[in-house]
Amino acid sequence: MLQISSLIQSELAQIRGNFTGKDIVSLEQFAVDDIRLLFSVAREMKRVAVNNMPSARLAGYLVSLLFFEPSSRTFGSFCAATKRLGGQTLDIQNPEAVTSVYKGETFEDTIQVFEAYSDVIVLRHQLAGMARRAAEVASIPVINAGDGNNEHPTQTLLDLFTLHERFGRLDHLKGLLVGDLLNSRTLHSLMRGLSLFKGNTVYLLSPQLLRLPADEIVSLRARGLRIVELASEEDIPRDCAFWYWTRVQKERFASSADYQAVARQSFVATPELLARYASKDMILMDPLPRVGTIDPAVDSDERAVYLRSQIRNGLYTRMALLALVLGL
Amino acid sequence: MLQISSLIQSELAQIRGNFTGKDIVSLEQFAVDDIRLLFSVAREMKRVAVNNMPSARLAGYLVSLLFFEPSSRTFGSFCAATKRLGGQTLDIQNPEAVTSVYKGETFEDTIQVFEAYSDVIVLRHQLAGMARRAAEVASIPVINAGDGNNEHPTQTLLDLFTLHERFGRLDHLKGLLVGDLLNSRTLHSLMRGLSLFKGNTVYLLSPQLLRLPADEIVSLRARGLRIVELASEEDIPRDCAFWYWTRVQKERFASSADYQAVARQSFVATPELLARYASKDMILMDPLPRVGTIDPAVDSDERAVYLRSQIRNGLYTRMALLALVLGL
Amino acid sequence: MLQISSLIQSELAQIRGNFTGKDIVSLEQFAVDDIRLLFSVAREMKRVAVNNMPSARLAGYLVSLLFFEPSSRTFGSFCAATKRLGGQTLDIQNPEAVTSVYKGETFEDTIQVFEAYSDVIVLRHQLAGMARRAAEVASIPVINAGDGNNEHPTQTLLDLFTLHERFGRLDHLKGLLVGDLLNSRTLHSLMRGLSLFKGNTVYLLSPQLLRLPADEIVSLRARGLRIVELASEEDIPRDCAFWYWTRVQKERFASSADYQAVARQSFVATPELLARYASKDMILMDPLPRVGTIDPAVDSDERAVYLRSQIRNGLYTRMALLALVLGL
Repeated sequence: MLQISSLIQSELAQIRGNFTGKDIVSLEQFAVDDIRLLFSVAREMKRVAVNNMPSARLAGYLVSLLFFEPSSRTFGSFCAATKRLGGQTLDIQNPEAVTSVYKGETFEDTIQVFEAYSDVIVLRHQLAGMARRAAEVASIPVINAGDGNNEHPTQTLLDLFTLHERFGRLDHLKGLLVGDLLNSRTLHSLMRGLSLFKGNTVYLLSPQLLRLPADEIVSLRARGLRIVELASEEDIPRDCAFWYWTRVQKERFASSADYQAVARQSFVATPELLARYASKDMILMDPLPRVGTIDPAVDSDERAVYLRSQIRNGLYTRMALLALVLGL
Repeated sequence: MLQISSLIQSELAQIRGNFTGKDIVSLEQFAVDDIRLLFSVAREMKRVAVNNMPSARLAGYLVSLLFFEPSSRTFGSFCAATKRLGGQTLDIQNPEAVTSVYKGETFEDTIQVFEAYSDVIVLRHQLAGMARRAAEVASIPVINAGDGNNEHPTQTLLDLFTLHERFGRLDHLKGLLVGDLLNSRTLHSLMRGLSLFKGNTVYLLSPQLLRLPADEIVSLRARGLRIVELASEEDIPRDCAFWYWTRVQKERFASSADYQAVARQSFVATPELLARYASKDMILMDPLPRVGTIDPAVDSDERAVYLRSQIRNGLYTRMALLALVLGL
Repeated sequence: MLQISSLIQSELAQIRGNFTGKDIVSLEQFAVDDIRLLFSVAREMKRVAVNNMPSARLAGYLVSLLFFEPSSRTFGSFCAATKRLGGQTLDIQNPEAVTSVYKGETFEDTIQVFEAYSDVIVLRHQLAGMARRAAEVASIPVINAGDGNNEHPTQTLLDLFTLHERFGRLDHLKGLLVGDLLNSRTLHSLMRGLSLFKGNTVYLLSPQLLRLPADEIVSLRARGLRIVELASEEDIPRDCAFWYWTRVQKERFASSADYQAVARQSFVATPELLARYASKDMILMDPLPRVGTIDPAVDSDERAVYLRSQIRNGLYTRMALLALVLGL
């Protein structure tokens, strides 16, 4: 379905224009054609990365990795994406390193300083909305690498790419979403992504206190996503194309006791659960880190992609995004 | 005035020799001809950076960014300068990372270790005199990226370059210097730099407790700089070519109350102040971070260069310095 | 003795196979022929590094420097080794940066994530055995850059290379080993390395509480190393080819008082000691940092290699290792 070859040249130029010089702040900014183009480029990138082809696509370009909140995984992915394409990075890996902030500098000034040094800013911040703020301030592209509980659009793009690589389509899929449906920005964004395509259904399984808020359900249904809340593991339909597991985030709870109370009710993907409810062709996903989500005994199962293609697809989609926003 | 073309070849070779393999420790080491050559190279570098020209000038070279004191801005500038020229960096961004120091290693040993790994050491240190000490120990070039309250020569070079780019000369300029004239190494070095050229005048405006020390005034006047202390904003002459604003550095005060007392008396660059006293052709500078120095409402004024050319010029002059000390 | 030219082509291919795609976890994995090949490549690397020859040998390759325990020296050496060969690094320099660990991720998951991003993992960890664990988990080569009190194989390889460069052989050498013979993994590994070659003798000098354990003595003698414990400095034989000094590691002691008690008994290499007991042709080595081991007055002595060839040889052997494990 997402074949780029079906596009004529003028359309392609227009879609490219949706990326060149643009910020990547929210999943909301992507139309189906944008995703189609991105995935086409990501497949090219996969070839470059898998074969260690020395690429000079980003030669002469410098990407600031500005992490106000540390995140070794996302940092590593963007760092590798840049360097696999022959680009260079300017690494600010932790908040203490952003010393100007401690001297009282405003966020806006800091962004403009790094804008002067580099061609793209990849921003991670602990506060919601900071990616959009940076994008407003900077004239170079800003890529949101997670801003608090708001968005982490490249996570969703890599998740969609993983589904597309496996099933050849992003419509008419059934998926099971498990874990913290109240707080997980990953799940919220994934559902928004799936709602761009026709005929998708998600089954939700979460501790009672972490259910998807009613207004979110209404809004997503209005966008065309079919949503079914499950009461227990026994209700999992046997024909899901994917299971997507997320951890209960300890840092969201006021007290350790509150967290423990919820964590006790949380669900774990075990070999037994897969044996009973999972189809042969499904894939098991997790944005990582997995903490109390998936039993390591499942790792050797071929359907477990979280430590394999899902991480690698993050690299390929980020390589594609960098190349596209730089117009290369 | 600073045209390199006016130099004959043999002179040029000699001036280049003032850089090749040399340390950049203090502004005092530069003669007018050195600055002339540096700015000529910096203009070349600007072309490379602005056009994202993939440069291989520093290919095969490794620059250690050894920051015993973190400074994201200066780190970023030297990192970008190296990579824009095709070089690589070895990043030590914070004191905890210099683990050998915590194991009790001497500064001199640490410097010699990084000398063995790299071709240039860019050193930032919280203590005055450490850049010179490193330069004595290492046989490769050491560039001072700020050593305590002593010097930060590349800051002054970029400030002078900014003035030269704007006015085409560094002599017969009038400038207003505002803020912490007692402690600011930036202002002290800038005045020394201006004193290298004929006919310059600086007007000083500072809280009573932060005035330029009398012996500094004597010494700078002896070097030919005209110095006028102003009593209040009303005395600002309307024909200054530049205003240079600096913050009152909280970290210099024994108590927060002492700081507050002085900070209350400090001056702020507002649109009103510019409307009243600034000429049409002047530029407004700040070494950043600006904290209580310049009202953000001024940012959109074309004369405000602190978030624009002033930062970028830091990149170009550092690129030029790296190329020159490596003899490339 | 270690001339690679004496090997025929088929043997060479086989020895290369001992490196390509392999992990470097322990010194125990090396046979004499492996070391012969490694040193031959290291000599090539020395030529590349000394002449700043821009090398593209590792172009397109990415090396994760995953330091769960900070170590600026070893980090710097591997970083420089990668970049001198045209490769790129993904830097995780301190434990706080490995954020996933703080979110509760297992070590095994973290390794698999960085495996997905890169071509080699260089691992430093505070716990013994973690390098082997990482090697079991990852399908790409893992190089042990020190795992707690277990091993630091590249340190020993660079020490052996330094001896070989100086004496043209690794057999029939006499060496003096001084310092913490109880805990120093550096000394333990060096003795194991020397025991691979015929006719070597080590003389041991240490505080009473830090003597080499009896079972270690038995095991090393069984491997063919001659071991002589010395009672005092006066017993140092005058014909040692090398002296190898190590510090008493403060962090090994329960209390500061315990450390002080031992440190008072420890030995220091002074100009006087060298004058009295050292031969003209010997070399003085130290793995650094030196803390209470070697008097700086010795630094200018030509026999002192610790701040000169010993560090540089670390760079060359690590360059060689990286090229060999990647099959380049």
